[in-house]
Amino acid sequence: MIMGSNDSAERRCYFDWAATAVPDASLFDAAIPYGNPSSPHMEGRAARDALENARERCAAVLRVPPETLYFTSGGTESNCIPLYSFAARQGGGRIIASAGEHSSVAENLQTLERMGRPTGRIPIDFNGRVTPESLSKTLEKHGDTRFAAIMAVNNEIGAVNDMAALRDVLRRKSGPPVHFHCDAVQAAGKIALDLGGWDIDSASISAHKLGGPRGIGLLYLRLPLEVLYSGGGQEKNIRPGTENVSGALALAQCLENHGLPEKIDAELADARRRWKRLLGAFMGMDRCRLIPAGREPGDRGFSPYIVQAAFKDIPGEVMTRALDDLGFAVSTGSACSSASPERPVLAAMGVSDSLSLEGIRISQGWTTTDEEIDLLLAAITEVLSFL
Amino acid sequence: MIMGSNDSAERRCYFDWAATAVPDASLFDAAIPYGNPSSPHMEGRAARDALENARERCAAVLRVPPETLYFTSGGTESNCIPLYSFAARQGGGRIIASAGEHSSVAENLQTLERMGRPTGRIPIDFNGRVTPESLSKTLEKHGDTRFAAIMAVNNEIGAVNDMAALRDVLRRKSGPPVHFHCDAVQAAGKIALDLGGWDIDSASISAHKLGGPRGIGLLYLRLPLEVLYSGGGQEKNIRPGTENVSGALALAQCLENHGLPEKIDAELADARRRWKRLLGAFMGMDRCRLIPAGREPGDRGFSPYIVQAAFKDIPGEVMTRALDDLGFAVSTGSACSSASPERPVLAAMGVSDSLSLEGIRISQGWTTTDEEIDLLLAAITEVLSFL
Repeated sequence: MIMGSNDSAERRCYFDWAATAVPDASLFDAAIPYGNPSSPHMEGRAARDALENARERCAAVLRVPPETLYFTSGGTESNCIPLYSFAARQGGGRIIASAGEHSSVAENLQTLERMGRPTGRIPIDFNGRVTPESLSKTLEKHGDTRFAAIMAVNNEIGAVNDMAALRDVLRRKSGPPVHFHCDAVQAAGKIALDLGGWDIDSASISAHKLGGPRGIGLLYLRLPLEVLYSGGGQEKNIRPGTENVSGALALAQCLENHGLPEKIDAELADARRRWKRLLGAFMGMDRCRLIPAGREPGDRGFSPYIVQAAFKDIPGEVMTRALDDLGFAVSTGSACSSASPERPVLAAMGVSDSLSLEGIRISQGWTTTDEEIDLLLAAITEVLSFL
Repeated sequence: MIMGSNDSAERRCYFDWAATAVPDASLFDAAIPYGNPSSPHMEGRAARDALENARERCAAVLRVPPETLYFTSGGTESNCIPLYSFAARQGGGRIIASAGEHSSVAENLQTLERMGRPTGRIPIDFNGRVTPESLSKTLEKHGDTRFAAIMAVNNEIGAVNDMAALRDVLRRKSGPPVHFHCDAVQAAGKIALDLGGWDIDSASISAHKLGGPRGIGLLYLRLPLEVLYSGGGQEKNIRPGTENVSGALALAQCLENHGLPEKIDAELADARRRWKRLLGAFMGMDRCRLIPAGREPGDRGFSPYIVQAAFKDIPGEVMTRALDDLGFAVSTGSACSSASPERPVLAAMGVSDSLSLEGIRISQGWTTTDEEIDLLLAAITEVLSFL
C-alpha cells in the first residue's frame, strides 16, 4: 500500500490504475516517479516534476529554452513530426532534403512525393557534404522551397555539414522563410552543436546513440508547429501519448554525460587520436581505400566517430561477416537500411557501385580503446591475408 | 572491451556506435542485448532474437500469430497508425468511432474531420456501451463506412463492449468489409480478450497500464497496412525507428504476468470482490451516485478495475484534491484529458453537466487491498463530513 511516493514518506493509496498502473518493481528503477505526468495528484505531480527536470537538464546542455524541447519516441519520430506537419499544411510549399539524409528523412520524402507533395534533393559533394553553393543552386531551381532538411553529421561517412554557412544561404533567399530542419542524431553529444546559434528551426536527437535507452528522443522546435497526429495533448500537443519519464531522465543523463562543451571537446580529442591511429594504418594498406578518397585523419569536416572504408576485392558484407566471426562488430551502411544492398548516399557522393559494394562503416565511441583499434587492424589484416 | 555479448563469453570489440552506442551501464539491465536489431553482427542478432522472443511471448498470451504484432511507442501511436493509414488511402471511405473513445482516437477523428475526411460517431447508451442496435443504425446512416473504432473497455466508466456481437453487426453489413479497430488499452491483462476470435482487424495495447514502462506498446494488425510514416523499414515498415528491445521484453513480461487466461480469471475475481465492497458501500451513502446510475457490483458489463461515482455538492476536482491531501490518488476523467474540464464521454451517456462535474474515477489494480478500499471509504466519508 505504501507506494514509495518520491517526495514524501507518507502512506499513499493509489486508485488511479486506469491512468497508469503501479509498476512491476522488477522492471523498474524505483527512484523514478511512476505517476502519469498528466494526473493532478501527488504521484502525477512527482512524475511531471521529474519530466520537466529532465527537459530543463536537456535544455541546459543544448543551450536552448526548455519549452523548445519535446520528448518523442526517438530520432525517426523527431524527423517525421516536422516533415509531416509541414506537409499537411495548406499551401505549405516545397520540401527539400540533402541527398545524404538517413532513411528516416529520405524514405519519408519519397512517401510525400508519392502523395503528390512537391519535393527536391540537395546534392552532396564527393565528401558527402552539402556545400553552400549546392544549397544555393537547389533554392534557385526550387523557388517555392519552404522546408529544408539537412543533417548535421552523416551517419555513413561522418561528413560534418557547416550548418551556420547553410543557414546563411537559407536566410539570403528572398520570399517567405525556409524552415531549417536538422537531423542531429549523429551529432548530439559527439560534435559541438549550436541549435540556437545556427538558428535551426527543428532538430532531432536519439538517446540510444548516446548510451541511453531505445524509445526516447528529443524534438527541438524553435517555434511550435501544428502537428498531424493528435491525442491527449501531451508535450503541448506536439507529441501525444503518456510521457516516458524514465526515458526522459535517461536521455538527460546521457546529454549531461557527453553533450556538455568540455565533455565534447575532451571526447572529441580522444576520438580524433584513435581515428588518426586507425586511418593512418588504413592509408598504409594497399588494398584499403577511404571513402571519400583523400579523407585526412585530422580533417574537421568529418566526425572522428565514423569512417567508411573499402577493401579491394572484398564485398563489404563479406568483410563485416568475417570480422563478426573474429569478434568485431562493424557494419556496411546504416543499420536502418541493412536489409537493402543499395547505398544511395555513396551514389550521391559519386562513389562507383563497385567501390560502394566494398564499403564498410566503422564507428567508435567513448569506451573505445587504442588496444581495440590495434586488434581491429590486426583482424582486418588477417581477413585480407586469406581473402 | 569485453562487451558482455549475450550469447557468448568470447571477447568482442564493438565498432558500430553509429548504429547504437554501447549502453551506459547505470541506465540499463545488462541482461538485455544492446545491439541494434537491424544490425547483422552478433550484437544485432542477439537483439533481434530478444525482440522476436518478446513478440512470440506476447503472441502466445494474446493467442494471435506473432507476425500480427508490431511494437510501437504506446497506445496512442497504436491507435494513430491504423487511423491515419486508413485515412491516407485513396478512396478510403468513412471512418466512424464510438462516442466513448479515449482522446487518442476521439481527437484524431476530429483532426481527420478538419482535414476533410468523412467521419461519424457511434452513439453509446446510458451505460457507456455501444449496442449492436446503435452500431447498426450508424452503419445504415453512413453506408460508406469502411473503418470503425470501438474500444473494448471504456477508460472512464469501465463499460465493457460486447465485441463479438458488434463484429457480427459489421459482418452483416452489405458492401466492402469494414475495418474493425479496437482500443484494448484498458482491457489487455484485465478482462478476457479474444482478438482472433472476435475477428478484430487492429488493436492497441500499452505496457504502462500493465505495470510496464512508458514508451512501449503493441499494435495488432490482422493483415498488414500501408502506413503513413516511413523510415528504416523496422517492424516490417509498420513502425519505423530502432526497436525498443528492453521495452518489448518488459511488455511481454507484463502480459505473461497478467494476461494469461488463468491470471485474468483469478485477478478478475479478486477485483470483483474488492469492487463489491467499494460499490456496496457507495450504494449505502446518501450523497453518492454511481455513474451510470444502477451499476451493480456484479455486472459483467463493467470492468471491476474502474468505477465512476459522483458525490453530491462536491465537484470532482475538489474531491480528488481533498483525497490527494489525505493520501489517496484518484482522478476525475482520463489523465490524458485532465487539462480539460469537459467530459464528452459522460455527456454522450446522457449524464447531466451538473452530475458530470461531480464525477470522480476510481481505478484499482492487482496490488490493491481490502484495507485500501476501507481506508478510501473512510477518507471519502471524512471529506463528505466537512464539505
